[in-house]
Amino acid sequence: MVTFRPAPEFILDMDYQNIIDSIFEVVKQNPNPGKVASYIPELGDVDPEQFGVHLVTVNNEHFHAGDSETGFSIQSIAKVLSLALAYKLDGGKIWKRVGVEPSGNPFNSLVQLEYDEGIPRNPMINAGALVICDILISQFENPKEVLLEFVRDISGDQSISYDLSVARSEKATGYRNEALASFLKSFGNIHNSTVDVLDFYFHLCSIHMNCRQLASTFLFLANNGSDPVIVNEILTPSRAKRINAIMLTCGFYDEAGEFTYEVGLPGKSGVGGGIVAICPNSYSIAVWSPRLNKKGNSCRGLDFLERFTTATGQSIF
Amino acid sequence: MVTFRPAPEFILDMDYQNIIDSIFEVVKQNPNPGKVASYIPELGDVDPEQFGVHLVTVNNEHFHAGDSETGFSIQSIAKVLSLALAYKLDGGKIWKRVGVEPSGNPFNSLVQLEYDEGIPRNPMINAGALVICDILISQFENPKEVLLEFVRDISGDQSISYDLSVARSEKATGYRNEALASFLKSFGNIHNSTVDVLDFYFHLCSIHMNCRQLASTFLFLANNGSDPVIVNEILTPSRAKRINAIMLTCGFYDEAGEFTYEVGLPGKSGVGGGIVAICPNSYSIAVWSPRLNKKGNSCRGLDFLERFTTATGQSIF
Amino acid sequence: MVTFRPAPEFILDMDYQNIIDSIFEVVKQNPNPGKVASYIPELGDVDPEQFGVHLVTVNNEHFHAGDSETGFSIQSIAKVLSLALAYKLDGGKIWKRVGVEPSGNPFNSLVQLEYDEGIPRNPMINAGALVICDILISQFENPKEVLLEFVRDISGDQSISYDLSVARSEKATGYRNEALASFLKSFGNIHNSTVDVLDFYFHLCSIHMNCRQLASTFLFLANNGSDPVIVNEILTPSRAKRINAIMLTCGFYDEAGEFTYEVGLPGKSGVGGGIVAICPNSYSIAVWSPRLNKKGNSCRGLDFLERFTTATGQSIF
Amino acid sequence: MVTFRPAPEFILDMDYQNIIDSIFEVVKQNPNPGKVASYIPELGDVDPEQFGVHLVTVNNEHFHAGDSETGFSIQSIAKVLSLALAYKLDGGKIWKRVGVEPSGNPFNSLVQLEYDEGIPRNPMINAGALVICDILISQFENPKEVLLEFVRDISGDQSISYDLSVARSEKATGYRNEALASFLKSFGNIHNSTVDVLDFYFHLCSIHMNCRQLASTFLFLANNGSDPVIVNEILTPSRAKRINAIMLTCGFYDEAGEFTYEVGLPGKSGVGGGIVAICPNSYSIAVWSPRLNKKGNSCRGLDFLERFTTATGQSIF
Repeated sequence: MVTFRPAPEFILDMDYQNIIDSIFEVVKQNPNPGKVASYIPELGDVDPEQFGVHLVTVNNEHFHAGDSETGFSIQSIAKVLSLALAYKLDGGKIWKRVGVEPSGNPFNSLVQLEYDEGIPRNPMINAGALVICDILISQFENPKEVLLEFVRDISGDQSISYDLSVARSEKATGYRNEALASFLKSFGNIHNSTVDVLDFYFHLCSIHMNCRQLASTFLFLANNGSDPVIVNEILTPSRAKRINAIMLTCGFYDEAGEFTYEVGLPGKSGVGGGIVAICPNSYSIAVWSPRLNKKGNSCRGLDFLERFTTATGQSIF
Repeated sequence: MVTFRPAPEFILDMDYQNIIDSIFEVVKQNPNPGKVASYIPELGDVDPEQFGVHLVTVNNEHFHAGDSETGFSIQSIAKVLSLALAYKLDGGKIWKRVGVEPSGNPFNSLVQLEYDEGIPRNPMINAGALVICDILISQFENPKEVLLEFVRDISGDQSISYDLSVARSEKATGYRNEALASFLKSFGNIHNSTVDVLDFYFHLCSIHMNCRQLASTFLFLANNGSDPVIVNEILTPSRAKRINAIMLTCGFYDEAGEFTYEVGLPGKSGVGGGIVAICPNSYSIAVWSPRLNKKGNSCRGLDFLERFTTATGQSIF
Repeated sequence: MVTFRPAPEFILDMDYQNIIDSIFEVVKQNPNPGKVASYIPELGDVDPEQFGVHLVTVNNEHFHAGDSETGFSIQSIAKVLSLALAYKLDGGKIWKRVGVEPSGNPFNSLVQLEYDEGIPRNPMINAGALVICDILISQFENPKEVLLEFVRDISGDQSISYDLSVARSEKATGYRNEALASFLKSFGNIHNSTVDVLDFYFHLCSIHMNCRQLASTFLFLANNGSDPVIVNEILTPSRAKRINAIMLTCGFYDEAGEFTYEVGLPGKSGVGGGIVAICPNSYSIAVWSPRLNKKGNSCRGLDFLERFTTATGQSIF
Repeated sequence: MVTFRPAPEFILDMDYQNIIDSIFEVVKQNPNPGKVASYIPELGDVDPEQFGVHLVTVNNEHFHAGDSETGFSIQSIAKVLSLALAYKLDGGKIWKRVGVEPSGNPFNSLVQLEYDEGIPRNPMINAGALVICDILISQFENPKEVLLEFVRDISGDQSISYDLSVARSEKATGYRNEALASFLKSFGNIHNSTVDVLDFYFHLCSIHMNCRQLASTFLFLANNGSDPVIVNEILTPSRAKRINAIMLTCGFYDEAGEFTYEVGLPGKSGVGGGIVAICPNSYSIAVWSPRLNKKGNSCRGLDFLERFTTATGQSIF
């Protein structure tokens, strides 16, 4: 018989508010050099200096700083939500159509899709998310409504919605995603019309949240798949862990290794400047600031999270 | 103030021996379909049905099953050891010459090396390990002796050694690694002679251990960088965590995502059929069985570890 | 002063009919192992044993054998015709949007398009032909009619037309071409709507001709750009030569080098089983037989042309 | 019966000296913007403004301008000579180990070699030339002597030799070629030791010639494979044509299509600044000037040849 010896940091009480406040100030004082995504006006028109943080623990305690109540476009972060819904419904069958390996490719996903004959490397890259959208379209008459309902349920917030003007703008300029959808269809890995798949995908990426809503929505992944407030199982513990594993290895475009290495938590970023990260059995944290580094991840978001996990010592490693 | 609520499994005592025994039997009964690596006779001549497991906890309790005392060639697993030594000595400077991103490339590393202009994606692929060898050669007059000394120290076992006939065979057929070394040198990312770098690399990969030795050698990575027995810091906690992060994202060739997804622990495999995995703050476990799947990872090793982490619930997610 | 010494074969009169007849018989007796393109029913439903040849000299003498009067879908051969029209009208400006280098890529053109940032390697690959279509759409209100008029003019045959059922079938299954068009548009190298570009492209590829019409259409390229019958300049001699150069290096998918090496004449093939080749200052020859080799070129077509240029000694080298 | 109608330019006497002189002056007056290859001192130390031309006809008439008697390193041009010797001896068997397709790859040959599993795309890229060297080493005890003898024979000039200091410098810095040789050997497509293959290869590339010698050496390829002076068959007409076809499609690195398109003759360039081109049944011409464009081809060499073939109208198309 072995008695587990917990790591020192796990027995300490954490003064999260204090830690958040002091790191928030440091990061806010630092230069903020990145660029705001500007391929659609709705993203480009945002005030680039905004910066918010919200942390919610599995005990439902909330801590925040800065512009944590200002909404933004969560963009690619939403890919985790559509994945969770598809995984819940379709189970392991989804892995026949999308992989779980990091793409590790600086060029971008079309090349790899060609080599892998239409099987996207993972559900966090655009190609993979399009396949997940296609799976949901095959399951529901109104996939956009069902997905929004699912997100509202797990966040406990009925005010969350699509930003239709973002969805429209994405559609009007989304030639690369059109190319991906047609390419996937040429390999037989899109079953519905590419028009429908793209429409759903652009709506998905347009979901609008603030940091509090985002942290709350992802809390179930820090809590073995269950909503800790109303104790409702959203995913089985095993499936929740697997989504965390995918976020860890694939959640930050071509910078997943760097994030794992520097932050040490599963997470997901979006070009709207949001990042959400999960500390299993402890908390979910959302950071938002619009300026992005060259890899497309929020500069202040990364800076904050690196400092935060260093200060708390709560990496999963 | 927040009081941390530990996950349920962490407060249970684990009957590791019982769990190991029962899973070992199941896996042993199952068909064992893979192929033994045979590109050098020393690897090909091994009895393919051998199968051993050894787990050691941070409290220095040991559990084992099967051929856990039979030595084998740890091959690529040794890349973690040379990385640990270089990281200890050279610190963050090594990351100027090798990345931390998964390679995610089914073709192999020469292609990516070309796109990335001689900077290997991570230290777990051959190109990255060659650069780490070059760094150590620049630091020591007798890098082979120093590395072996380091391994003997962290394992607490002076009997661990190179298998010179394996090193010789690798050298005689290692044209691909020769190509990698020359290619790296053409980009200026090898500073010493390629002959010396390859000689050191082939010795490194030839390190011979049994499961007990392998689990013991890696225990410090489960214990925040320190040897739990003699309480000696081998790496700082922060650096130990970073090596774990790299193992997690890059430790299983093109199957790192799959391993993360199925097993949920940082680990490293070798074509000799060995796999070592780390459960932070809990244990180090080594499994060995020579038959490999198509990606080059031990079939029984993967099967055992998937079942083991499912049974114990001790994933890092 | 130098007096040009002509090569021996150029001073001989050629008994083309006799040579064609004897080679036709040999090739017809040989096994015919390839496969008919079947991705659309209109191509798959053709009698695979059909085989026709037609040669027309710059002196307007005609020679033929087999099914030379049976029409077929010229498919990619039509890319030369749209190129000729765009080159005639837009001149050297077209080379800012499409290259003249062989693609030399076994995977296919999406990969290369990504590396080359949306500039197709040459106008003979699908991506390049789509850009040429886009250029023509920008020039004409009714590009489909203008192109057909141009083809009818240079062939001197008003009966040549699109096969609308082929165009429709291509459109219904052309997801790869859709992907290419959207991908090009994402790089800004398509100026019109992808729907219009694809519609024009699918019509272009559906042009229906028999061997006589095909040889006659391409005769101007063997005659320094001018129709030898009515002595009308279609392209300047310099531009005609340049199109021949592009056909030589890029006209046979991934087998351009092989064709140049074995046949030694500029030419272009299509998946309908047609091949047209040019002997400068001598003749244009069209061969058609539906069974294709693995690279997508007519087996009997290649076999016939290799034997024919060997027998006549009239390679350009 | 058909009477062949020769193209107009073929019946004109050409005043080659006059044409050469006037174009030479124009090109010499133009800015000369490229860079001299400087990866070894022997290439970098050359006077960058040197510029020579030599043309020899199949009637053994000679025309020249500028520094046509100054020797330079012919570098990659020598790949045609080793190919000619291997083709003469080994016949069609060589095509099992090297292809005839253009590489068409801006990255470079290691990538493509990996996809093509060790079969170089053609004998004009480094990988292909290394395989040809290996073939010759398997045939001769003293391949360096035999090759030099062959070159002296076809040029009729016993003073042609290797530049040993160039060969030594190449060897000392040739890590990329080392990588290629080891990579080829890892695929089994090098049968001898990579050290021997590289030694031969570096000697081959070091061959030193002036424009007169270079033009004379290649004259047999303009004359159906035979030396027109002493009427000696070096290659069969069919094989000579095939080498011309390979030069045309593969002779100018990633600019083969451009050269074919602009110049319209088979040719080969080297980083020493030399270019040789062939007009079948007419002449061989060598141009040399050390400054190279970004693709590695002589700026003045290309400029001269484009103007020369435009002025003479003697393209093969």
